[in-house]
Amino acid sequence: MEFEEKTLSTETIFDGVLVHLEREEVLLPNGKTSIREIIRHPGAVAMIPFTKEGKMVLVRQFRKPLNRTVIEIPAGKLEKNDLEPLEAAKRELEEETHYAARNWSELETMYPSPAYLDEKFTIFLAEGLEKVADPLPQDEDEFVEVVECTYEEALKLKASGEICDAKTLYALLYWKLRLLEKEA
Amino acid sequence: MEFEEKTLSTETIFDGVLVHLEREEVLLPNGKTSIREIIRHPGAVAMIPFTKEGKMVLVRQFRKPLNRTVIEIPAGKLEKNDLEPLEAAKRELEEETHYAARNWSELETMYPSPAYLDEKFTIFLAEGLEKVADPLPQDEDEFVEVVECTYEEALKLKASGEICDAKTLYALLYWKLRLLEKEA
Repeated sequence: MEFEEKTLSTETIFDGVLVHLEREEVLLPNGKTSIREIIRHPGAVAMIPFTKEGKMVLVRQFRKPLNRTVIEIPAGKLEKNDLEPLEAAKRELEEETHYAARNWSELETMYPSPAYLDEKFTIFLAEGLEKVADPLPQDEDEFVEVVECTYEEALKLKASGEICDAKTLYALLYWKLRLLEKEA
Repeated sequence: MEFEEKTLSTETIFDGVLVHLEREEVLLPNGKTSIREIIRHPGAVAMIPFTKEGKMVLVRQFRKPLNRTVIEIPAGKLEKNDLEPLEAAKRELEEETHYAARNWSELETMYPSPAYLDEKFTIFLAEGLEKVADPLPQDEDEFVEVVECTYEEALKLKASGEICDAKTLYALLYWKLRLLEKEA
């Protein structure tokens, strides 16, 4: 089957602080044309951080699109001067939680919503967390609260609806697998 | 800690076919103001469909934001006249794969990117698939190819990068857990 959609024209609709929106006219494989609305995003990093005691370190923050607080794994978007995702992940973990991790490994790179969004993010596993004596400061306009929890506590936060985003639900499945594999 | 960001003003930037973009000025807990760019989306459904032989049914389609084909679990956005997600899921499965499922159960509702997107989708488990004799037709401007695979084949599609979106990577973790639990 022929799949490719060739771009006939591209129009920038909005170039904002975070969101860059384009509208493309494309040529479909059947010779017709269609419109694709595409959000361009700089990319992001996220991490699944475990303390030595096996607790996961999460962060609570207000998410305006949902108009309520959400508890998520630590994450942040890539900045223009980020050389590589791992460095960005280390900075985000320290800024948001005041932890540094002894061991980092890359788990997966994924696209949250490829139908209309080019955002890609890399998830790392961060283990052997230690509190940083003099951590990088949080942005003064960021309001983030650290939540450390056991697996059972995380399931309660999911049942309450406060854990509800795709990357954190992915992290909980990952955690369940990890616990099952340790048992085996 | 106080988290709430009160909306001071809302401006519609773009009202497209799929994407509705708003720009809100908000009052932060520290008394300062900030800008939130928010994409409003009608919501979606996705499903993890297993054939009687235990294969997963996926779909390959061109995703313009990535400019290549991606293999994903079947999914679709909610339409204005959708009464409930389950009905939308049944329709999407039939249109995209020509299968109907004997057993449906709701697994999870999740937000792909709550920092700037209000999209919410519900993932269902669909089991006992049977080919529909006279299926709902695919939209003539949709180009979707069905891919049925074993778990090992799915891992190869992931390694090749063609499986790369968050909901399908979630589905693969779910599948791994399901296989482990069947072994136990």
